[in-house]
Amino acid sequence: MACSTAPPAPHAEPATAPSCASPPPPTPTLRRRVARQLDPGLRAEPGLSRTNMAVCGLIVLAVLVAVLGTEKPLYARYQTTFLGVEVGLTGLLALEYVARVWCSVENPAWGGSRLRYMCTPAACLDLAAVLVILTTAFASEGFLMRLAMLLRVLRIARIGRFSSAFDTLAEAVSSRAIDLVLSVGVSLTLLLLSSAAMYLVEADVQPEAFGSIPRAMWWSVATLTTVGYGDVYPVTVLGRLFAAVTAITGIGLIAMPTGILASAFSDAFQRQRQREAKAEAEARASSGASSGPAGSSGP
Amino acid sequence: MACSTAPPAPHAEPATAPSCASPPPPTPTLRRRVARQLDPGLRAEPGLSRTNMAVCGLIVLAVLVAVLGTEKPLYARYQTTFLGVEVGLTGLLALEYVARVWCSVENPAWGGSRLRYMCTPAACLDLAAVLVILTTAFASEGFLMRLAMLLRVLRIARIGRFSSAFDTLAEAVSSRAIDLVLSVGVSLTLLLLSSAAMYLVEADVQPEAFGSIPRAMWWSVATLTTVGYGDVYPVTVLGRLFAAVTAITGIGLIAMPTGILASAFSDAFQRQRQREAKAEAEARASSGASSGPAGSSGP
Amino acid sequence: MACSTAPPAPHAEPATAPSCASPPPPTPTLRRRVARQLDPGLRAEPGLSRTNMAVCGLIVLAVLVAVLGTEKPLYARYQTTFLGVEVGLTGLLALEYVARVWCSVENPAWGGSRLRYMCTPAACLDLAAVLVILTTAFASEGFLMRLAMLLRVLRIARIGRFSSAFDTLAEAVSSRAIDLVLSVGVSLTLLLLSSAAMYLVEADVQPEAFGSIPRAMWWSVATLTTVGYGDVYPVTVLGRLFAAVTAITGIGLIAMPTGILASAFSDAFQRQRQREAKAEAEARASSGASSGPAGSSGP
Amino acid sequence: MACSTAPPAPHAEPATAPSCASPPPPTPTLRRRVARQLDPGLRAEPGLSRTNMAVCGLIVLAVLVAVLGTEKPLYARYQTTFLGVEVGLTGLLALEYVARVWCSVENPAWGGSRLRYMCTPAACLDLAAVLVILTTAFASEGFLMRLAMLLRVLRIARIGRFSSAFDTLAEAVSSRAIDLVLSVGVSLTLLLLSSAAMYLVEADVQPEAFGSIPRAMWWSVATLTTVGYGDVYPVTVLGRLFAAVTAITGIGLIAMPTGILASAFSDAFQRQRQREAKAEAEARASSGASSGPAGSSGP
Repeated sequence: MACSTAPPAPHAEPATAPSCASPPPPTPTLRRRVARQLDPGLRAEPGLSRTNMAVCGLIVLAVLVAVLGTEKPLYARYQTTFLGVEVGLTGLLALEYVARVWCSVENPAWGGSRLRYMCTPAACLDLAAVLVILTTAFASEGFLMRLAMLLRVLRIARIGRFSSAFDTLAEAVSSRAIDLVLSVGVSLTLLLLSSAAMYLVEADVQPEAFGSIPRAMWWSVATLTTVGYGDVYPVTVLGRLFAAVTAITGIGLIAMPTGILASAFSDAFQRQRQREAKAEAEARASSGASSGPAGSSGP
Repeated sequence: MACSTAPPAPHAEPATAPSCASPPPPTPTLRRRVARQLDPGLRAEPGLSRTNMAVCGLIVLAVLVAVLGTEKPLYARYQTTFLGVEVGLTGLLALEYVARVWCSVENPAWGGSRLRYMCTPAACLDLAAVLVILTTAFASEGFLMRLAMLLRVLRIARIGRFSSAFDTLAEAVSSRAIDLVLSVGVSLTLLLLSSAAMYLVEADVQPEAFGSIPRAMWWSVATLTTVGYGDVYPVTVLGRLFAAVTAITGIGLIAMPTGILASAFSDAFQRQRQREAKAEAEARASSGASSGPAGSSGP
Repeated sequence: MACSTAPPAPHAEPATAPSCASPPPPTPTLRRRVARQLDPGLRAEPGLSRTNMAVCGLIVLAVLVAVLGTEKPLYARYQTTFLGVEVGLTGLLALEYVARVWCSVENPAWGGSRLRYMCTPAACLDLAAVLVILTTAFASEGFLMRLAMLLRVLRIARIGRFSSAFDTLAEAVSSRAIDLVLSVGVSLTLLLLSSAAMYLVEADVQPEAFGSIPRAMWWSVATLTTVGYGDVYPVTVLGRLFAAVTAITGIGLIAMPTGILASAFSDAFQRQRQREAKAEAEARASSGASSGPAGSSGP
Repeated sequence: MACSTAPPAPHAEPATAPSCASPPPPTPTLRRRVARQLDPGLRAEPGLSRTNMAVCGLIVLAVLVAVLGTEKPLYARYQTTFLGVEVGLTGLLALEYVARVWCSVENPAWGGSRLRYMCTPAACLDLAAVLVILTTAFASEGFLMRLAMLLRVLRIARIGRFSSAFDTLAEAVSSRAIDLVLSVGVSLTLLLLSSAAMYLVEADVQPEAFGSIPRAMWWSVATLTTVGYGDVYPVTVLGRLFAAVTAITGIGLIAMPTGILASAFSDAFQRQRQREAKAEAEARASSGASSGPAGSSGP
């Protein structure tokens, strides 16, 4: 009753608390429509909106351009094209950032304050993805230029935020975080011991490769992870015996996190299926009563 | 009642709709018998028919001949034999293709139309397996000849269609397709980041191997998958530190799909066992009543 | 009642059918006691008998001597010792074989016929382990001598028979035999396709390593299994792209059998635990009533 | 009633049997407070105490110094610093050892006898971690010095005692100890057979690498564990065929322990969750009644 006296278009004011909602406005404002495209939290349908798909494509394209741009002969030949594409893509990403800040007041999570949204890690990442273009100006050659390229490649991290299936994987991994950290600890201990053992028996024969424990660690990492570059390897009988033990232990090292993750994924998928079954049952129970849109403006 | 006036041998007409079936004919026609040999869907017994086993053998033999034929000294010495075997095998495969098209009207799935069957991907694959012989004529040397050989080797893909156990594996893999795609995505991101990091620290020392991100990717793939050819590897202390982190991350990369597939197989086998138990129970319940053949002509 | 007229020591006659057993004899014969030491099936207690433990030790020792004997400088120096130990160990294994044949009539599984026991694969393996000494006489150098050594090393296979825990593993593996065979089939197909693809793009550049599909397979095996010797690897951009795809596919190839086996072991251990719990419950229920030995002569 | 006549501070006497405890003393003695910091068994709160965290940090620091100290140029430059840090760290570890011995009478597990505590493996490890400093004196160069370094690195093993999550992993691994030992046995057998096979076919061509079975084992270990250094590899066609079979078998070898551990972890985590749920339920039931500390002095 009290709500019926609310203004018909409350969405123009940034800080409307959604405690007591009016009936949905007949025509949503432009900002609201843009917000529904950009913010997955305000979207009724599952999956990515078309705008966010385009943003993902933009990011992938920008990273690809950055990667290819590090190949000097290619860059020298198409320098103008590279610069043009880079500026164009950064302009679009800047536009996206401004649009996200402009729309952030639609999401009640930020309490109607744009500054509050701009301080979230996600928004900072978006801003950084735009500002990284500035590094092109002062970095022409050498380490600094390569650091600028690395920063541009890091934009790929933004894509992770769009995926909801990613959450299942992340949940499964983080549910066993202690055990995974522990198995990393066991790995590091084995790395240390095998390096020290190999240093003990091979330091005299191959001082360049096994002359100290830190040097022996390079061999030890390559063996325990079963990468086996083959640039250094033991040549004495005792060294090869230790290497064999290290390589066989390395299998256990691979088996441990695999076993932990296998049981974690098994649990996570089971939980997810139960959640889906529950959500479906609830949806069926409530489908007869509700008729309005499932957005944030519903009662 | 209306059905009793149907012609006694309706299988000669290609397009008889199986909506209202007559009692089974006392002697099945030749085409029907051939169809039962070639089409697993029309077969009452489980497992492969003898004809399909022979077809599998033919395909394996044809692929083997194609593989051995690429070894030039061997081919030069037994050129006539190779050509004869190739022509003979292709003739048999052509015969099989014609027989399959001829019989396809027996299977109600294609609605009695041979063209409809010929447009299925499986039939196209069969036709391609025959037509690939034509490539021998115009390709004598170099890239085109090798492409023709690759096409011949691709015939092996036809075997997959014959196995029903393959379906369990495929079902298990496809039930976690999103998660597997996601873990490939995580892998590609790690590949990108480790390449960029290695490019950052090793580009000055080894410009040939790490002078650009695409070049560094070759090392990164070999390390993350723990293949470790050893043709390129970092030599600086910082580079080796990054390589160690990459190699250890690579173990997680192997553990993730393994964990996902382990839980997927565990589920799939459980479902299969339940299905088998259910099918057995049903078979027991209905075994007293049914006496006709389990083909498509039963009521 | 009818049984009370049976002879008091029926075990001296080889072919007594154990259909209706007399009370256990007060003093078991020597042959029976030897049989209980050698035949795990006649033993009441779980685990290995002391004699069988000694036999295992003998086999390991014999294999170790054979392995060390292939190192020529070592063999040349201690030739007399090697020959003496070899003859002594073979003598003991011959004694064991004779004892097993002599005792085989005690086990009703062979129906009291020694010849029937001697024709079992296990007995043939035992005889072969003895007869392999004869190869020393005519093989002094080269391929034949090395084949003789391989035969001696094959004695190690006899140990597998003594372990009962081995059965759980074997059961788990064989319960998924079809799926494992299938995943080997998928692997071989991938091997074939990646070899053909690499042959397509690298045959001109590296004819020695990729000049034919069988040659390219050597690289393909090393990459798909992630062994990565590094003796051959692609050098063109397209070849490296294909190699990257192959290496990433190789991870899936490792993940598939691992996932199958993980779910198989999980099932097998669960079944084993249920069986043990059932056996324990039965043992408790019957422990008050039974008092005789658990050998083959009990009712 | 009988307990009320007990001395008010029974903790000063070493051998008080905790059969009938007095009400908790109003102010715990210094030794008791130190004991609670050092001994996880006497601690009410879960997790590590601050003192034990500091001890862990000390150990990691001491191992890091030992590892870096093996790099000769670094050691030569900062010799005084290395010696000072080493002496200081060892002094702190010695202090910790004395404090642990002094406090050990607080823990009823040792029956109030300090000697009994000093004879435990954990205490011996602590003492060894202190006494290893003495090796610096007499070992200046060569093998003995490196052995002393190895002993110092072994201090890292002390950290394992502090972790309770480690117990879950250790429990999971030890619950399948027989199966893991068995899979190691299968691996060794495969190692033996593949070495013997490769020795059979490659001994003539590469006598240095495959001239005896022990030599061929070095290649076999590198292949079965998929490390693949690439220093030795077969060159004949038959040898490469055997190597391919060995490499593919190696995948099964990795899959077996992984599968065993995956099912073991799955079980262990399930048991742990059940235990935690039970402990929580018990804690809720008893939380209303208890008010004293959860140490060893409670009733």
